[in-house]
Amino acid sequence: MSLDDAARKPHDRLAEALAEDMAAVNVLIRERMASRHAPRIPEVTAHLVEAGGKRLRPMLTLAAARLCGYRGKHHVSLAATVEFIHTATLLHDDVVDESTRRRGRPTANLLWDNKSSVLVGDYLFARSFQLMVETGSLRVLDILANASATIAEGEVLQLTAAQDLKTDEAVYLQVVRGKTAALFAAACEVGGEISGVAPAQVQALRDYGDALGIAFQIADDLLDYGISTGDIGKNVGDDFRERKVTLPVIRAYAAGDAESRAFWSRVIEAGEQREGDLETALALLARSGAMDQSSATARAWAEKARNALQLLPAHPLRDMLDDLASYVVARLN
Amino acid sequence: MSLDDAARKPHDRLAEALAEDMAAVNVLIRERMASRHAPRIPEVTAHLVEAGGKRLRPMLTLAAARLCGYRGKHHVSLAATVEFIHTATLLHDDVVDESTRRRGRPTANLLWDNKSSVLVGDYLFARSFQLMVETGSLRVLDILANASATIAEGEVLQLTAAQDLKTDEAVYLQVVRGKTAALFAAACEVGGEISGVAPAQVQALRDYGDALGIAFQIADDLLDYGISTGDIGKNVGDDFRERKVTLPVIRAYAAGDAESRAFWSRVIEAGEQREGDLETALALLARSGAMDQSSATARAWAEKARNALQLLPAHPLRDMLDDLASYVVARLN
Repeated sequence: MSLDDAARKPHDRLAEALAEDMAAVNVLIRERMASRHAPRIPEVTAHLVEAGGKRLRPMLTLAAARLCGYRGKHHVSLAATVEFIHTATLLHDDVVDESTRRRGRPTANLLWDNKSSVLVGDYLFARSFQLMVETGSLRVLDILANASATIAEGEVLQLTAAQDLKTDEAVYLQVVRGKTAALFAAACEVGGEISGVAPAQVQALRDYGDALGIAFQIADDLLDYGISTGDIGKNVGDDFRERKVTLPVIRAYAAGDAESRAFWSRVIEAGEQREGDLETALALLARSGAMDQSSATARAWAEKARNALQLLPAHPLRDMLDDLASYVVARLN
Repeated sequence: MSLDDAARKPHDRLAEALAEDMAAVNVLIRERMASRHAPRIPEVTAHLVEAGGKRLRPMLTLAAARLCGYRGKHHVSLAATVEFIHTATLLHDDVVDESTRRRGRPTANLLWDNKSSVLVGDYLFARSFQLMVETGSLRVLDILANASATIAEGEVLQLTAAQDLKTDEAVYLQVVRGKTAALFAAACEVGGEISGVAPAQVQALRDYGDALGIAFQIADDLLDYGISTGDIGKNVGDDFRERKVTLPVIRAYAAGDAESRAFWSRVIEAGEQREGDLETALALLARSGAMDQSSATARAWAEKARNALQLLPAHPLRDMLDDLASYVVARLN
């Protein structure tokens, strides 16, 4: 890799290496988000899809398939499937969280209404289901059905676990799998599955996606408490204000004395937040070692992701996936 | 059929004939609506499932499979699949319609919140997807994926078509297919599909379900304007107050003079409803012939459903399905 390459972000290098496939994915997405009867559907979908997310999940599918030597066409359908599932969950999440902004734009639930977001999400989920049936692989359908159940279960779990300081790390991990890792894992696994590589390699791809997703989400939760000084496009303290029980809070609470626990109970469970509370929270998170420990956990998951890749054939795309795992936690300085 | 039999409603006779299979379906439903991690899921689901709907859709699947001589186990999974899809759509519908009562109970969105209804609906849809994958039939998956897309598209279409007097009969039919007929058709079709009968018979089952669902929905829309004097568990005028453009309104508007059209525009499109407007609407619907014509349309669809059954083997269950089609429109006196 040249110095020039090294300076570019891994997902930008993936996007370049997979440009042709991604162009086909984008054509397919536009084709399948159309509706002969209900113009509201492509309007809402286009608003979100064309806001230009990083398209990380479809790239994982394409990269997995290509590094396993896949030469067919189904990787494109599966990449579009994965992006549709992701888009459907974003539409529903924004209703559930009553969000007003996503990808720097007003959310669909704000621009249209909650009804449209719920029903267009359902439509995209059904469309994703049609796309995967086209691959003709029952194993692929099984993987994506299981991922869908884990995603929905994790979301419901988050409803009840959020704002509850009894949430432990096992529940947190389950929420994180639902929120992020289940779809990352399935996106990678189906890419391997359609390529017909050995089951151990398919499993390695799944393990990579799962660990990458967990590392990614823990890092995200840490960045919300401003562990990085760089521009992360995120406001410090959003999770705090929304009273979300994330890993650093779980650890600070577990390690805290009576006074510190009373603080967390007041701001998270009772939701009584006053001027200066975020600063107190940041101090408690640092002092308890919760930030450092959580960073170490994120790094361990990233390492696990990189180790899983060892079972896969040497390939420039494998190196980019490896770099991606490192990059996800490199933001934690 | 004895006189005693004739006096009982066809779906009660179906329930009796299919009692053993339905018991297995109910066990499977309870098993699969469980969640190891999120107790909110079975709470919300049980509230709706155990309120005891008629379980018409799973019975259609069981009846279709049994009358085609099916002897395996997959009809039970598919019946549960169909009920899960139906339950998921009810949860989302109640959020979209802001409903407060369903099956004589407060709705889940009222008892818990919209968030739970959206996410538990997603979970049930994912669970239904897992159940159908277990049948190992790609054709079954294809049928149910297409039905899911039609359902969601119809729901979105209804959002934009409701309260719009430009809605024509083709759009109305598309909405009705999404709301009712697509799942009726798929429920019947998959029962035939797993039985391995000839494609023409599978198609006949699909045609039966489609026509039955359309007849059922048109009848429902007529009953909302009180065409029957019997107890239908429905308040006359609900659709009117919600300004829904249903078949009788489409026809009365199409046949109306300028004064009548102005009335419909005011009450449906502008939503300015005053004391006595429902009575005026009922008079216009009767006078224009819209009620009689719409009843005739419902009867024609019921007849179409009965004709489709002719392609299927003689069987007591076939006779009950035949009676069911007659019963659906017999409510229209």
